[in-house]
Amino acid sequence: MTDFRLEHDFLGERSIPNELYYGIQTLRALENFDITGIPLRTEPLFVQALAYVKKAAALANRDLGVLDPAIANHIAAACDKVARGEFDDQFTTDMIQGGAGTSVNMNANEVIANVALELMGHQKGQYEFCHPNNHVNCSQSTNDAYPTAFRIALSNKLVGYAQTLGKLADAFAQKGEEFRNVLKMGRTQLQDAVPMSMGDEFRAFATNLREELLRIEDSRRLISEINMGATAIGTRVNAPEGYAELVTRHLRDITGLELVLAGDLIEATYDTGAYVQLSGVLKRTAVKLSKICNDLRLLSSGPRTGINEINLPPLQPGSSIMPGKVNPVVPEVVNQTAFYVIGADLTVTMAAEAGQLQLNVMEPVISFALFTSISYMTRACHTLREKCVLGITANAQHAENLVRNSIGIVTQLNPVLGYETSAEIAKEALRTGKSVHDVAVTERGLLTQAKWDEIFTYENLIRPQFIQ
Amino acid sequence: MTDFRLEHDFLGERSIPNELYYGIQTLRALENFDITGIPLRTEPLFVQALAYVKKAAALANRDLGVLDPAIANHIAAACDKVARGEFDDQFTTDMIQGGAGTSVNMNANEVIANVALELMGHQKGQYEFCHPNNHVNCSQSTNDAYPTAFRIALSNKLVGYAQTLGKLADAFAQKGEEFRNVLKMGRTQLQDAVPMSMGDEFRAFATNLREELLRIEDSRRLISEINMGATAIGTRVNAPEGYAELVTRHLRDITGLELVLAGDLIEATYDTGAYVQLSGVLKRTAVKLSKICNDLRLLSSGPRTGINEINLPPLQPGSSIMPGKVNPVVPEVVNQTAFYVIGADLTVTMAAEAGQLQLNVMEPVISFALFTSISYMTRACHTLREKCVLGITANAQHAENLVRNSIGIVTQLNPVLGYETSAEIAKEALRTGKSVHDVAVTERGLLTQAKWDEIFTYENLIRPQFIQ
Amino acid sequence: MTDFRLEHDFLGERSIPNELYYGIQTLRALENFDITGIPLRTEPLFVQALAYVKKAAALANRDLGVLDPAIANHIAAACDKVARGEFDDQFTTDMIQGGAGTSVNMNANEVIANVALELMGHQKGQYEFCHPNNHVNCSQSTNDAYPTAFRIALSNKLVGYAQTLGKLADAFAQKGEEFRNVLKMGRTQLQDAVPMSMGDEFRAFATNLREELLRIEDSRRLISEINMGATAIGTRVNAPEGYAELVTRHLRDITGLELVLAGDLIEATYDTGAYVQLSGVLKRTAVKLSKICNDLRLLSSGPRTGINEINLPPLQPGSSIMPGKVNPVVPEVVNQTAFYVIGADLTVTMAAEAGQLQLNVMEPVISFALFTSISYMTRACHTLREKCVLGITANAQHAENLVRNSIGIVTQLNPVLGYETSAEIAKEALRTGKSVHDVAVTERGLLTQAKWDEIFTYENLIRPQFIQ
Amino acid sequence: MTDFRLEHDFLGERSIPNELYYGIQTLRALENFDITGIPLRTEPLFVQALAYVKKAAALANRDLGVLDPAIANHIAAACDKVARGEFDDQFTTDMIQGGAGTSVNMNANEVIANVALELMGHQKGQYEFCHPNNHVNCSQSTNDAYPTAFRIALSNKLVGYAQTLGKLADAFAQKGEEFRNVLKMGRTQLQDAVPMSMGDEFRAFATNLREELLRIEDSRRLISEINMGATAIGTRVNAPEGYAELVTRHLRDITGLELVLAGDLIEATYDTGAYVQLSGVLKRTAVKLSKICNDLRLLSSGPRTGINEINLPPLQPGSSIMPGKVNPVVPEVVNQTAFYVIGADLTVTMAAEAGQLQLNVMEPVISFALFTSISYMTRACHTLREKCVLGITANAQHAENLVRNSIGIVTQLNPVLGYETSAEIAKEALRTGKSVHDVAVTERGLLTQAKWDEIFTYENLIRPQFIQ
Repeated sequence: MTDFRLEHDFLGERSIPNELYYGIQTLRALENFDITGIPLRTEPLFVQALAYVKKAAALANRDLGVLDPAIANHIAAACDKVARGEFDDQFTTDMIQGGAGTSVNMNANEVIANVALELMGHQKGQYEFCHPNNHVNCSQSTNDAYPTAFRIALSNKLVGYAQTLGKLADAFAQKGEEFRNVLKMGRTQLQDAVPMSMGDEFRAFATNLREELLRIEDSRRLISEINMGATAIGTRVNAPEGYAELVTRHLRDITGLELVLAGDLIEATYDTGAYVQLSGVLKRTAVKLSKICNDLRLLSSGPRTGINEINLPPLQPGSSIMPGKVNPVVPEVVNQTAFYVIGADLTVTMAAEAGQLQLNVMEPVISFALFTSISYMTRACHTLREKCVLGITANAQHAENLVRNSIGIVTQLNPVLGYETSAEIAKEALRTGKSVHDVAVTERGLLTQAKWDEIFTYENLIRPQFIQ
Repeated sequence: MTDFRLEHDFLGERSIPNELYYGIQTLRALENFDITGIPLRTEPLFVQALAYVKKAAALANRDLGVLDPAIANHIAAACDKVARGEFDDQFTTDMIQGGAGTSVNMNANEVIANVALELMGHQKGQYEFCHPNNHVNCSQSTNDAYPTAFRIALSNKLVGYAQTLGKLADAFAQKGEEFRNVLKMGRTQLQDAVPMSMGDEFRAFATNLREELLRIEDSRRLISEINMGATAIGTRVNAPEGYAELVTRHLRDITGLELVLAGDLIEATYDTGAYVQLSGVLKRTAVKLSKICNDLRLLSSGPRTGINEINLPPLQPGSSIMPGKVNPVVPEVVNQTAFYVIGADLTVTMAAEAGQLQLNVMEPVISFALFTSISYMTRACHTLREKCVLGITANAQHAENLVRNSIGIVTQLNPVLGYETSAEIAKEALRTGKSVHDVAVTERGLLTQAKWDEIFTYENLIRPQFIQ
Repeated sequence: MTDFRLEHDFLGERSIPNELYYGIQTLRALENFDITGIPLRTEPLFVQALAYVKKAAALANRDLGVLDPAIANHIAAACDKVARGEFDDQFTTDMIQGGAGTSVNMNANEVIANVALELMGHQKGQYEFCHPNNHVNCSQSTNDAYPTAFRIALSNKLVGYAQTLGKLADAFAQKGEEFRNVLKMGRTQLQDAVPMSMGDEFRAFATNLREELLRIEDSRRLISEINMGATAIGTRVNAPEGYAELVTRHLRDITGLELVLAGDLIEATYDTGAYVQLSGVLKRTAVKLSKICNDLRLLSSGPRTGINEINLPPLQPGSSIMPGKVNPVVPEVVNQTAFYVIGADLTVTMAAEAGQLQLNVMEPVISFALFTSISYMTRACHTLREKCVLGITANAQHAENLVRNSIGIVTQLNPVLGYETSAEIAKEALRTGKSVHDVAVTERGLLTQAKWDEIFTYENLIRPQFIQ
Repeated sequence: MTDFRLEHDFLGERSIPNELYYGIQTLRALENFDITGIPLRTEPLFVQALAYVKKAAALANRDLGVLDPAIANHIAAACDKVARGEFDDQFTTDMIQGGAGTSVNMNANEVIANVALELMGHQKGQYEFCHPNNHVNCSQSTNDAYPTAFRIALSNKLVGYAQTLGKLADAFAQKGEEFRNVLKMGRTQLQDAVPMSMGDEFRAFATNLREELLRIEDSRRLISEINMGATAIGTRVNAPEGYAELVTRHLRDITGLELVLAGDLIEATYDTGAYVQLSGVLKRTAVKLSKICNDLRLLSSGPRTGINEINLPPLQPGSSIMPGKVNPVVPEVVNQTAFYVIGADLTVTMAAEAGQLQLNVMEPVISFALFTSISYMTRACHTLREKCVLGITANAQHAENLVRNSIGIVTQLNPVLGYETSAEIAKEALRTGKSVHDVAVTERGLLTQAKWDEIFTYENLIRPQFIQ
């Protein structure tokens, strides 16, 4: 046995180091595509999903009599090994490639064929016994196998993301409970508005993020529509009768996912709508996270010349020159992750728009953008929870003092004194630096001390009741 | 009666021409905001929705005893007139303003107050009898009234958009039926792939767009969540017990929409997630429309040096210099509309991200972006249907000739001859300019003429069956 | 004379009301394109620039003997009238159209032909004497005339924008001078950093915006490259020898702009790089303006529970429910304008990317996006200056108190005590609520009161000198 | 000597494996930031630039007497080693972090301090002899050192990118020369327009890209403005008199770059305008590259049912199902790279907009986006040249046949027959399928064969002269 084997395709012949499970087409892809330097194996769920697809196809082909059962079963066994991650290192194709995923599909076909060959007792490269195209790719095209595997991988990756996001929401909810009785000033347009509970502010963050879990579920439903059996362009050319339905059933069994065969295979073969929708959901969550982190940074601003209502856990010295400075570094890194994800959504948008006729050839960059965004978001949510939210403390006394000293409480006099009189009081307080109480009760006698006390109880400030 | 009346707010006094129904705060808004030059009345559904909100509030306030029934009823009557569009010209505020919609809300409050005053037999400006803030805005804040009206207007506007989009999809479906038996070459990556039916290609456009109708319904569900009764920041300050629920009920009755009171009013008051989602849906449809128009332009390219499978109806001379040139002007204008909408989605994204603490003050530009996008998309879909799709004809003979002359049909030999032999045939045909038939049957005798005829029937080309 | 005239093009015949100066092709455009509802006349500088182009072409054609001097001179005279705005109402084409500007070019050709006809003593529509295509459009194509006019209009529009932006920068510089001796806390990452002069903060805004004036000049240089004489695709087909150079010279004289003929007319005919660059410059300024407005809103936050270092002039009551509230409505509307412009930049980007082969057919939406962005930015800058910046006042005493009370001043002890000791002091001050002075001088005696006084003079706080 | 050393900062104490050159703050950064998984060392030019900055600072501090010459010289020597890449593996901080680059700056400070310590004969961690903050970071803040290093790295990285882009343009120019006499149909709006030289088409690609080299130079000029000596917020606090100017001079000498000290250090410390401009330039080039690749894909479409005027070099089998199919995989991967870069520009835009007061804390994600975009673009340009452009061949005969058979040549009859007659001919040819010659000469006798021959010489088709 030599160290190299010869492989050929219709463009010619190449020698492949014998220890490699991938073959000539993967080699060409390696030579042709060097853009990101980030190989396919960075997304093990994608490698796994490719193996699932190839296994389901082998079983369906076997059931329908278009693939020798012995070959089909060995392909299936090879797929199991690949799906367990045993050959991840053989998935070397750059995450962005031309060819609409053909290189990724062939990378899988070649690795699986060679693993199967060895299981069958043959040498790698003896494709007459198990061929990457004729057997592993039987009844398939890149144009159905690739997007199906991509969708399965996305669906599985979203599960972990949703869990992490859910736990982040829980952390906010927990703080909402903890800060339930902390009175603070609510602010609109960065101007003092009316008092509120800090607990309600944090619970709202939880509400805000929990809505995203529902949107992620929507996305998972949309991406569960697959086009196996469409083959090249959706006409089912070269796929046996009943194959599309059968392979979908096998794939459902293998993955445990609620996969559905698309009703219009022509459309499903080029449509990238589900990716655009998912990317939009990721973007929406990024927008929300960024807003929340902006708020955390505002609320912890100071300590002496800002709002300073909350403290974020100190994680590292904040400055190489300013001693004692501690910065909100975790919200800051989450903001930046959000900006990355929003940018990636534009990448997906442009790639989706660039589909032409029966195919969208830009799917690889869509996969790169989506996988990266989900990974970064998952890590950002985890970091935000563990390194920041769980350790937030309230400066309750300071927050209450700000309320007591504010003019914003005048709103609660509206039902008693009317908008115009209240506005007069506010204006006077602002002009003179006096308190609302001094102007309204002491100076002008517009209401009695008793009425004041009835209106401005702690409970009524933090959770106002309607008092006329 | 003089020609002017004096009005005041806590910043001072201004004189208002007596024929105007709006008052001092609207006047200030006109002076302060001159950015787009596009006034609020451009969106009559928004004016209408503001009137609905004010009417519902008046009725709820009356029912709860915080508003004199006589005043409340006159406010309701005034709202009816405004909702019918009788005072649209009084809604002059620029579509983009600072103040988170306060100017829009006050524009409505002032107009309705003065209409009510006249109905009550008073003069405009006699606000002691019906005051914009104390009565019309009673139990409300801009921060609940404005977004609620915005959402109602969006929901109603989406109905017309969805109908137009649905009709466009129907037009594609109709063409799908008409072109059912037109054989043509399918193309992936702009390269000849395998044959298909032109009818399937057009039906796929219909499928592609019909999915959008479901997404629009999702959006309408999300924007049907309102925060009436939240008042300033969601604490319900100054709203009577039970008001939020009651006003929502009234609003449901008045609008006929399935409006739902948000579960977390603090969150609902600043959350812009539903707008981001809706904008994403509009963007997704724009992406699809742009892809479809790109396809129509490709398929009608030529007439002599392009693909030329279809003819778009000629609408206007295509060139000021090239005689006889006719251009695909309607798909082109739809492409451009799509780019506008995709840009507007970014505007919405940035505005949503800019929310701070208890409010998102950027809602006016979100409303401008969304209303404009829906309007443009509606007109683009209508134009595409009426001026283009309905008049498309197929060059059936030319399309079939392209197939017969192509190499792409070789794929259908795969199951019979295997991938590698088929690739050899293809390569030889390409190199020599010969047909697949000449190489496979005549020259190489790889299959019999009878087998060839079995495989390459018209029916099997256009809707391939599996033949081994 | 009847009320209608018949006109025809190669698609057929249409009757045109006789009072209209535009003809059959403009009529078709009106029917075909109804997307924005915003007609060409909204940009009078564009109408003017079209007239300039047509005049220069007529003169060059006359000089080169391809156009009868009498006709040419009447066309020129007609162009002068159009350029003066006398026929703006005839430019009715929607700002977005298909056809790469053909409708806009023909709108100009038809109006100018009919104006010229009347000047020649003929009736409108007697095109045998002066024809929109053969005479007015002589030696031109939409593909050179349209982008040339667009570029001239942009260049002229940028002049007014730059002036307004420059004045806004001046206003900030003036405040920089006014606030020169206001001591305030500098903040990084929203955390207290080190002291500074408020004057320097405002002067930095001026610096920041003045850089934009240079970038606008770069843009004007790039868009001054024109392709007159390229005709249909840059091969100069149908243009007489020497025409391109001569018409450019005439156009330079007519417009007073430093227009340059592109060196590669094939490339220049499809290239949209200059628009992308200009759009990027507008976006960059929008980003800066948004950041500045965010700062103004932060610095004026409060009045009692925010930073409150400056006051923005109150322009309108800030709330329909919260009496006395005044909001930073002008910075808010400028933020929103910025988001619009950033979105429009994406529209330009996508349109630019969609060029194909010898032309970019998406230029109309580029023109719509750029004209709108420049208009909105100009108005936003004007508003920001007049309604906000010029009226800003400083809360000097409060700003100084914040500094005196801060821990951030500890940085100035670094050179004397070292980073670690300074950090210890900061930590202790933060923990106990004490001042830096108390910890460093009184409690720990780490430096003498005399040294303290030397370091912490007002002058040294506001404009620090190096003291070891 | 133990395997670990203890280090402390003002948050506490941590043990560091003794073989590591980085210290406690880098360790904290590693723990705090795990988003991209891509470490700083991925950009060796950034590590090098950090070393340059630290060396220049050490020399300036020595010259001004604020740093012991022995320490300064050892720091400088350590920087030389780091700049040579000897310690790249110690730069482990994630490319995206919170803290505005503090972790990156401290990573450099710690590594350089420890390298210097060893050069001085001390142990790592004996910071009393050379301290990361007090000595290596002397007279600096992250807020000046970090952006300065970032700018130097960008400038150097752009050199390689510009070279690669220039070579790609050269390859197009070379093809322009090669295809100089290939006659082909020019197309506008995907419709047949007028004939042209294929050489001119390719030369235009070169022109289009060469303009980008000038824009890159603009960007390098803008990013050469640095703020060394600004320290924390631009007030020069803690930097000795004359330091800013001196360190800039040293840095110019060390780097060989035309670095300039910003005139307004307050502004320069937060301004991200130069990054936005550079990102815009990258985006503009991406837009152009995407358009060019779209063209290459259109022109090579087919081979039988598309335009097929050129052949791209076949690089890999194009399909796992369609035998013989070869796809334009390199243009496709370049398109996708362009979409990535356009997305990254949005990330930069949002990050730039998020600056607040005296700093923009989002600079790390800007650096990540820009470094990545430049890397990807460089590789894409290289790939496009080597794997595609250089191997493109023309189907000259087919291209000429398309012209001869086209209707578009009718434009050249305009000056002879007028627009309307020419349009008639075109219409008739299109309707009947006849050639322009048949209609114009044979059937209608509108011009003589001799005149026809004069007009339609090969030379006049490919490079038209004006003939009346």
